[in-house]
Amino acid sequence: MKRVAVIGGGVAGMQTALRLAEQGVEPVIIEKEAELGGKLRGWHVLFPSFTPASEILTELRRRIAERGIEVMTRTEARGFSREGVQLPDGRMLACDSVVVCSGFTLFDASIKEEYGYGIYDNVFTTVDIERMLNEGRVAKADGSRPKRIAFLHCVGSRDEKVCQQHCSKVCCITGVKQAMEMRQMFPEADVFNFYMDIRMFGPGYEEMYREAQQKYNIHFIRGRISEASPMIDGRVQIKAEDTLTGRPLRMSVDMLILIVGMRANDDNAAFAQGAGLNRAPSGFMAPRDMFLGNVKSNVEGIFYAGTVTAPKNIGESLNEGTAAADAAARYVGV
Amino acid sequence: MKRVAVIGGGVAGMQTALRLAEQGVEPVIIEKEAELGGKLRGWHVLFPSFTPASEILTELRRRIAERGIEVMTRTEARGFSREGVQLPDGRMLACDSVVVCSGFTLFDASIKEEYGYGIYDNVFTTVDIERMLNEGRVAKADGSRPKRIAFLHCVGSRDEKVCQQHCSKVCCITGVKQAMEMRQMFPEADVFNFYMDIRMFGPGYEEMYREAQQKYNIHFIRGRISEASPMIDGRVQIKAEDTLTGRPLRMSVDMLILIVGMRANDDNAAFAQGAGLNRAPSGFMAPRDMFLGNVKSNVEGIFYAGTVTAPKNIGESLNEGTAAADAAARYVGV
Repeated sequence: MKRVAVIGGGVAGMQTALRLAEQGVEPVIIEKEAELGGKLRGWHVLFPSFTPASEILTELRRRIAERGIEVMTRTEARGFSREGVQLPDGRMLACDSVVVCSGFTLFDASIKEEYGYGIYDNVFTTVDIERMLNEGRVAKADGSRPKRIAFLHCVGSRDEKVCQQHCSKVCCITGVKQAMEMRQMFPEADVFNFYMDIRMFGPGYEEMYREAQQKYNIHFIRGRISEASPMIDGRVQIKAEDTLTGRPLRMSVDMLILIVGMRANDDNAAFAQGAGLNRAPSGFMAPRDMFLGNVKSNVEGIFYAGTVTAPKNIGESLNEGTAAADAAARYVGV
Repeated sequence: MKRVAVIGGGVAGMQTALRLAEQGVEPVIIEKEAELGGKLRGWHVLFPSFTPASEILTELRRRIAERGIEVMTRTEARGFSREGVQLPDGRMLACDSVVVCSGFTLFDASIKEEYGYGIYDNVFTTVDIERMLNEGRVAKADGSRPKRIAFLHCVGSRDEKVCQQHCSKVCCITGVKQAMEMRQMFPEADVFNFYMDIRMFGPGYEEMYREAQQKYNIHFIRGRISEASPMIDGRVQIKAEDTLTGRPLRMSVDMLILIVGMRANDDNAAFAQGAGLNRAPSGFMAPRDMFLGNVKSNVEGIFYAGTVTAPKNIGESLNEGTAAADAAARYVGV
């Protein structure tokens, strides 16, 4: 039986492995964390339907278990070619093809020092909020209810200063989703979104943006926050320019939430060099082309699925998993 | 052998049929036009790579022919269930499952009367420009070279007045791509893009937007054009508000190009009623969910691929074709 190594056990990796198994190929998932699921494990509900992330995660894990797919957890691939994956203990896992599903890295908000993440209380990221939602307790650092909340879009995206020129695609929607959730939890609070362009491009996204304004009364201000500073009472003062009115703006908020982007994994460089793969200027892996070769790499027998090539939403990652499994199965002759 | 009817022979339909055939299912493509290819037939080059549309089209058609897939052209499906498709001559084409790939309809720019499409010379749509690019001759109505060109984003998208609330997703990129092509053809011309939000969300798109500004010197003005009127010399005068400066703006241009959006097909309503399918408020067909059921309908045995459920780019439509073929093949027991 032909064996395909699947590097990464997030959404794309799980779907790839499942479809390989269903087509009569033996997949092996190599996952560096202790369990499957990737970034989805830290998420509460998904846009635009507010579907619990755990529903998707549980179902994918159930299918993986049901099929008896081999999963190597706590195992980080050190490198690979289409013939094998180098494991941390020095062994080489032999295979007939590789599908790279190693995903992305969340932008570290503390790099944008001017926003004070990790320095001031009450500066959070969208990841923190999602974790709080999962824990069932969203609050200021002192445990009290926020009265004014600001979301800042594009932290670590579309920002040449931190070498992240690309758009992270799904963070606009995440920010709007969380703004709506905040208004539901704290109906007395004012919620602001500071943005450059609101990129609500998918089915139901634009409708959600409209609902956020009309039904939830969330305020959208076109402008980037230039600086955040602490106040004596634990609040955060933000300075921004409203680029629609052209006026500078100063506002104190109880919670400042940084909408962090997706960046390329650091190990992409070594993977690319080791296997002769191309990378995009963004650092993400470059698929052969955007069309008929969008899950293929420039090397025969090595395929991609999910966010290893660019920011993507869950649906797109799942479909790429199916398409990549399909391409790999054909490559190994099934 | 199990048979699956594929309604629509555009990119998604061709890919669906191919993958069905490769999995051992007999597909039949039902296409209302005289030939396969859908909207791609009218396109010149694709964003963000400037790949000729004909490359993808030729390759997909070649694969369809090579596999000997049955294609019924000039045949419009009148209705369907998972057991069969009703043909125009009254016959019922029996099948074991249906994949609906019937795509979208381009917004008719003449509905937005205030822009004068079909009334004034020198008001065009992005579709007209793509056709002119294909014919190798882009010019004003009198054949001369334009010196000032304006693109207007969101014509028929994000516009409640014409009952099109959704974002058409790929038109921002199309507009920026064409603006770059215009600057290449007419280096002496000034090119403007009037937009609400620039939605360059995909891999390489944001980078292209930056290049359009920095390398091509294309001007981006945040504001919707309220009116276009003819001038005695054949030029078009446009009135807009620059929403960044808050100033009204009046400008005469040699060519006004309306970036038309994607709307749901009119026959979706009858299809939905006949087969018991759900539609989204936008009029597009509603998939079972956005995640594990994104190529499934609410009816067992009926699947979707491509833009019949929402605006999508070519890569997404191709991956959905693969995923839908996969789901249909499993449904019919292959």
